[in-house]
Amino acid sequence: MGFVRNCWYAAAWGSELRGEPFHARIIGEHILLFRGEAGQPIALSDTCPHRFAPLHMGKIVGDTIECPYHGLRFNAEGRCAHNPFDPGKRLGAARVRSYPVVERDRFIWIWMGEPERADESLIPDFPWLNQIDIYTMSGEKIMHQPLNYKLILDNLMDLTHGQFLHPTTLGNESIATGTLRTWQEGNRLYSNRWNPDGAAPTLFVLPAVVQAGDRVDYWNEMRWDAPGAYYLEVGVTLTGRPRAEGGFLGSVHMLTPVDEANSVYRYLLFRTFAPGNDEVTKALEAIAEHAFRKEDEPMIAAVQARMAGRDFWEMQPLILKTDQAGILVRRTLDRLRAEEA
Amino acid sequence: MGFVRNCWYAAAWGSELRGEPFHARIIGEHILLFRGEAGQPIALSDTCPHRFAPLHMGKIVGDTIECPYHGLRFNAEGRCAHNPFDPGKRLGAARVRSYPVVERDRFIWIWMGEPERADESLIPDFPWLNQIDIYTMSGEKIMHQPLNYKLILDNLMDLTHGQFLHPTTLGNESIATGTLRTWQEGNRLYSNRWNPDGAAPTLFVLPAVVQAGDRVDYWNEMRWDAPGAYYLEVGVTLTGRPRAEGGFLGSVHMLTPVDEANSVYRYLLFRTFAPGNDEVTKALEAIAEHAFRKEDEPMIAAVQARMAGRDFWEMQPLILKTDQAGILVRRTLDRLRAEEA
Amino acid sequence: MGFVRNCWYAAAWGSELRGEPFHARIIGEHILLFRGEAGQPIALSDTCPHRFAPLHMGKIVGDTIECPYHGLRFNAEGRCAHNPFDPGKRLGAARVRSYPVVERDRFIWIWMGEPERADESLIPDFPWLNQIDIYTMSGEKIMHQPLNYKLILDNLMDLTHGQFLHPTTLGNESIATGTLRTWQEGNRLYSNRWNPDGAAPTLFVLPAVVQAGDRVDYWNEMRWDAPGAYYLEVGVTLTGRPRAEGGFLGSVHMLTPVDEANSVYRYLLFRTFAPGNDEVTKALEAIAEHAFRKEDEPMIAAVQARMAGRDFWEMQPLILKTDQAGILVRRTLDRLRAEEA
Repeated sequence: MGFVRNCWYAAAWGSELRGEPFHARIIGEHILLFRGEAGQPIALSDTCPHRFAPLHMGKIVGDTIECPYHGLRFNAEGRCAHNPFDPGKRLGAARVRSYPVVERDRFIWIWMGEPERADESLIPDFPWLNQIDIYTMSGEKIMHQPLNYKLILDNLMDLTHGQFLHPTTLGNESIATGTLRTWQEGNRLYSNRWNPDGAAPTLFVLPAVVQAGDRVDYWNEMRWDAPGAYYLEVGVTLTGRPRAEGGFLGSVHMLTPVDEANSVYRYLLFRTFAPGNDEVTKALEAIAEHAFRKEDEPMIAAVQARMAGRDFWEMQPLILKTDQAGILVRRTLDRLRAEEA
Repeated sequence: MGFVRNCWYAAAWGSELRGEPFHARIIGEHILLFRGEAGQPIALSDTCPHRFAPLHMGKIVGDTIECPYHGLRFNAEGRCAHNPFDPGKRLGAARVRSYPVVERDRFIWIWMGEPERADESLIPDFPWLNQIDIYTMSGEKIMHQPLNYKLILDNLMDLTHGQFLHPTTLGNESIATGTLRTWQEGNRLYSNRWNPDGAAPTLFVLPAVVQAGDRVDYWNEMRWDAPGAYYLEVGVTLTGRPRAEGGFLGSVHMLTPVDEANSVYRYLLFRTFAPGNDEVTKALEAIAEHAFRKEDEPMIAAVQARMAGRDFWEMQPLILKTDQAGILVRRTLDRLRAEEA
Repeated sequence: MGFVRNCWYAAAWGSELRGEPFHARIIGEHILLFRGEAGQPIALSDTCPHRFAPLHMGKIVGDTIECPYHGLRFNAEGRCAHNPFDPGKRLGAARVRSYPVVERDRFIWIWMGEPERADESLIPDFPWLNQIDIYTMSGEKIMHQPLNYKLILDNLMDLTHGQFLHPTTLGNESIATGTLRTWQEGNRLYSNRWNPDGAAPTLFVLPAVVQAGDRVDYWNEMRWDAPGAYYLEVGVTLTGRPRAEGGFLGSVHMLTPVDEANSVYRYLLFRTFAPGNDEVTKALEAIAEHAFRKEDEPMIAAVQARMAGRDFWEMQPLILKTDQAGILVRRTLDRLRAEEA
C-alpha cells in the first residue's frame, strides 16, 4: 500500500484546465490546478493555510488564486500575494505548497515528490497523441472509478481475462497462445505477444484491414511506465509482410490514483485504419466504454470489496504463468516505494 | 461478540438453490452455494484464490464453478479442476475451502467449523416442515435484516414485548401470567408457558378453533437450538380437554448471522385450523410480516444503533425475571464460544 | 476536541417541547426531553437500562416516560416507577440519568456536567427574546448542520468573510475598517466594531432607518458565552446622535453540538425598525436562510471535510489579526476543557 512520490503523475488532460480552478485529488492530496495569464499550468496545494478552505472554490485573479472564504491570494510559487485586511503587509508564513508541473503530449504532469528531484526527462513519452495528421483519434476520455489503481493495472497487464469478461468484444482466445516476451528497461516494462500466421481477428476484418480468409501475423504489445502510464498496440499484417502494410489500434491508458480505493482513468484510442471515419471511431469508443465500465469496473470493484482493505501480498494470491507482467508491475512499484522509505 | 463455528447454520431454504450460483455471507464469510449435476448442494468459499474474484459471479459447469475473471474451475472439494491457460497441468496450490453441507427439512445446513467435527446428527429437527398432509403452510419467507442475530433472539425468547410493540396483533397480556417453565437439554432450550382455564384468545376465535365465550387452556411453547434455530407453538383447547381436540399455530424462525450487524431471518408458519384456507394463510402472513418488519425490526435496529457496537454485557443490562430464557440463550452461545477458544 | 460538560447548553426552543417525547443528541449523548403534567421540562438519558431501547420512542404517562419495548416507566428523577410484569416491586437498579434543566428566555437549557454544580445564574441572559412589545421578531429557526460547532463559531466571530462569501447580502467592506475592541469578562467575550461618520449601509437605507445620502455612525457588536450562545447587534444612527434615535437588527445564534461533526443551530432575528412589517420580516429571514444555508454551510462543510478529523491547532492555522475574537473563543473552550480534566 502507499504510493510512490518521486514520479510524474498525469493530473489531467490539458483540455481539462480551462478558465476555472480545477481540483484533483492525487495519492490522497488535494491539488489545485489552474492556468496563469500566459496559459502556463500552475499546481498548488488546494488547502488555504488560514482556515483550510478549498482554494479551488475561489477565483483566479491574474496569476494568483483568491481564497473563497477570506480573500487571501496565492501565486504560482504558493506565496501569499495579497491580504485584503492588511494590504501593505507581506504574510511570510502564509504559504501553500507548490508542485512542479509540465504540459506535454496532451497531459498535465505533476511531480508529487521532492521538488528538487523533478526531472522532466523522466516523463514517459506519448508521441502518438500529437500525431493527428497520422492517426485517427477518439475523444479524450475520463472515468472516475472507485478502484485501486494497482487492481486496474493487474487487469490491463494480463489480457487473458478478455475471453471470460469480454466474451462478445475483446475476448480473444489467441491471446493465450503465441509467443509472449516480457522485459524491463529501468522502470519501464514491455510485454509483447506475437501470434504469427493465424486467422484474421474480427476486429481487423470489420474495418477491412485484412479479409476474412486471410492468414495474418498478429501483435499485442504493451508498455508500462511507473506508476500508471500504459500503452497498448494491437495490430495485424498479412503473414510475413511488414507491419507498415497492415494496420493497428493504439490506446493510451493513464491511471491516476486518487487514494487507495479510487482512481481517475483517462484514455484515448487511435488507429491507422478507416481514417477519418466517425462511425468507426464511435463504434470503437462504444466498445471501450462498455468493456471498461460494464465489465471490468464491476469485476474489479467486486475484487476490491472482497479484499476488504487487506494487502494483496498478505492475501497470498495464486500466481499463474499469465500473471508475469502484472506481478512485475507490482514488484516495480513496491521497489520504488521501498527506495523512498 | 464473535460467532460459534462448530455448529450447523441454515444457509438457505433448499428452494433458493436453483440453476444459478447462490451467494451467502455467513458469520462474516463469503460462501458460494450451488447444486451439482445430481442436485446435491455444494458449498465453497466464494473467493477465487487467484485474484479474489467472487466465484458466484461465474458459471456452473457440471459439478464445478468457473471463475468469472480468468476461468479457473473448482470442484465440490474446492480443488482446481481446470486452468484454461495451462490445461494439462494440475494446480495443487489453487484451492478454495469446501464446507460440509446437508439438505434436510427444507433447509440447506452448513457447518462453518472444523470439517472433521461435522456431525449430521447435530442438525436440529424440524419434522413439521415435511408434513404437508397434516398442516397448512405459509410460504417460505426470507428477510434480510440489518440486525445482530442475538438481538433478534432476545426479542423471540421473551414474548412480553408483544403488548407494547405489537398491541393490535400479537399483544397478549396473558403472556405475562400463567405458569412459565424454562429448561435446558444440552444446547437446546425449552420455555413453555401454560395458561389454564382462561378466556379464548382472539387469534383462535376468529378461525373458530374455539368460541368467544369459551374457557380454554392456552399454551405458548418455544424451543431454541444453538445458534439460531427457533420453534414456537401457540395453541388452545377447551379447558381440561386434550390438546389434539384444540388447534395450534406453529412457526419456524431460522436466524443466520451475516456479520455482527446483519442477519438473514427465514420463517414459515403452519397450522392445524382452517385447513387449506388461503385467506387465513394470507392474513397470518400479513400479520407476521407487519409485526416483524414494521414493529420488531425498527425497534431492534434502534437498540442496535444505541448500543453503537458495544458489548451487551459491558453495557450492564438490567435483567428482569421475564428475561430468563433470553439470558440462557446468550449464556449458552457465550459458553460454546468459550469452548472453541 | 471533546466538549465542556459543566455548562448550560440550549437543548431546544421551549416551543419544540409539545405533547410528544423529544429526542436530542448533545455532545454525543442521547437525551429525552418532555414536559410533565405541570408543563415543567424533564430531561433524562434516552436509553432504557433494560434492553437499550430509545425512550423517546415510547409514550408520556403523567410525569413518567414508558419504554416502547417492554413498558418500564421512569419518572423525572430517572427512577423506575412501574414494571408491568412485577407491578408491586420497586426496581432499585432500574435507573436512567436525569439532567438539570431550566426553561428561560424561550430556550430549554440543560446542564451536561455534574448535577450538583448546576447553577442557574450561569445561564446567559437573552432578555430581548421576551420583549415582544419592543421588537419585531422573526420565527424561531432551527438548522441541523453537519458541522463542528467551533467551525461555526469561527465563522460568526469574524465577519470579514462577508465580502467574499456573502457578496450580495451581508458583504460589507467597512467591517474590515473602523475601530475594533475585543475583551473578555469571565467566560463571556465581547467584540465591538465602531465605524463613525460613514456612508449609510444599504441594510438600513432600504427600511428607511436612515436616508441614502446620510452620514452615519455604524456599530457591529457581538457577545459570546461558552459554549455556544452568541448575540449580534448591527445598528446605525445619524453621525453624533444617540443610538436610541437610530435603529438596529439584533440576532441570537444558539449552537448546540450534537457530536464532533454535527450541530443544531437555532437563531432568531429581531429589530427596532419597520415594526410589525411582515414583508421586511420575511425578507430578513430569507437573507439569513440563504447566507447560512447556501453560503456559510457549504464553505464550513468543505473546511471540515478538508480537516478530515484532524485537530485545529495541530494543523497550525495561519492566524490573522482579524481572527482575534475567534481565537479567544477557542482558547476559552480549551481552558474550560482543561479545567474539567
